[in-house]
Amino acid sequence: MAKGFFITFEGGEGTGKSTQTRLLADFFEKQGYSCVLTREPGGSEGAEEIRNLVVKGAVGRWDAMTEALLMFAARRDHLVHTIWKALDEGKTVICDRFADSTMAYQGFGYADKGLGQQAVQTLYDTVVGNFKPDLTIIMDMPVEKGLERALKRDASSNRYERMGLDFHRNLRRAFLTIAEQDPVRCAVVDATGDIETIQNDIQNIVRKRLLEKGGK
Amino acid sequence: MAKGFFITFEGGEGTGKSTQTRLLADFFEKQGYSCVLTREPGGSEGAEEIRNLVVKGAVGRWDAMTEALLMFAARRDHLVHTIWKALDEGKTVICDRFADSTMAYQGFGYADKGLGQQAVQTLYDTVVGNFKPDLTIIMDMPVEKGLERALKRDASSNRYERMGLDFHRNLRRAFLTIAEQDPVRCAVVDATGDIETIQNDIQNIVRKRLLEKGGK
Repeated sequence: MAKGFFITFEGGEGTGKSTQTRLLADFFEKQGYSCVLTREPGGSEGAEEIRNLVVKGAVGRWDAMTEALLMFAARRDHLVHTIWKALDEGKTVICDRFADSTMAYQGFGYADKGLGQQAVQTLYDTVVGNFKPDLTIIMDMPVEKGLERALKRDASSNRYERMGLDFHRNLRRAFLTIAEQDPVRCAVVDATGDIETIQNDIQNIVRKRLLEKGGK
Repeated sequence: MAKGFFITFEGGEGTGKSTQTRLLADFFEKQGYSCVLTREPGGSEGAEEIRNLVVKGAVGRWDAMTEALLMFAARRDHLVHTIWKALDEGKTVICDRFADSTMAYQGFGYADKGLGQQAVQTLYDTVVGNFKPDLTIIMDMPVEKGLERALKRDASSNRYERMGLDFHRNLRRAFLTIAEQDPVRCAVVDATGDIETIQNDIQNIVRKRLLEKGGK
């Protein structure tokens, strides 16, 4: 069997990431890949505990740097206990959010309160090293539509969903900038269509960029 | 009134740091300084929540990098909400443990599992920047004696106290190495004597290095 891939999904709130990661995991299983579906922040026992500190509570409870450190602490635990372990066993790992979210939310997303790209990149290099996703799908749609869907799904909105329209517009721009900066790893997908159309687009990208190259 | 100082206490378990920080805070108050006594990990609401994740649970629950990130997340919150705030108000801050503990425990302390000095220094530079203590008192004593005192004080030992003698010997060496590398900031104090003698030694160092220079 071919070796597995590490695929991440990124994008704003309500862009359909978790639905599409599930469908893509089914697709991989049908292709004969053993597949682990996971998410950030979280995805391991310790990381889920850290997640609780980050997603709950008042909007301003952590400054951007503290938040980025908590995210990278959760990520490190997730890598050690879930992602690297599964990849070592030859599995494919599909992850709902990864480091680009930290870059977008804490690096770019706070406007004048953002850390900047350099600080987040330094944390990435120190904590994660040379490891990176084989493919990152960036789910893109107008901010108003995504937030409407996120709020419908989840009446008790989380800290991020309450951060206001400007914050989320910055976020969308940030993800598109990240995709421009690293086009080999990233692919932007129009997330406004119906679920099947979007999944087809994603599977086409996966075939072209990963499977037709015959695995790693 | 003179501006305040930032003074940290470092050293292994059971070396008397918390007793000596309290006595030194009394000394500063008597000299007319407004003084904040605090500790790490913790010292602010958010940092205390992060502390709970770090000091409780199984010895091996976090790898050294995850632990260092949690420590720096707690430290950042502590700086923002407690230390920098108090210093801006002209207060003196005395802190039971600070970044040298992360350097010793996670940088040096894990022997082959240690992060090394460079990784911890990179995190320090990214998270804390150019800010550092005006004075660091390193409390030094034989490891066996310190652990015996720590266990007497606290029957339900914490994660660190359960890490074994070799770990704690490495730790002592690490603190002494840090003191050698930065002798302008650090002073090593013999922590084996009685409480009054040790406090006198500390006050002499404080007078000579900080007060006789007439404040900042």
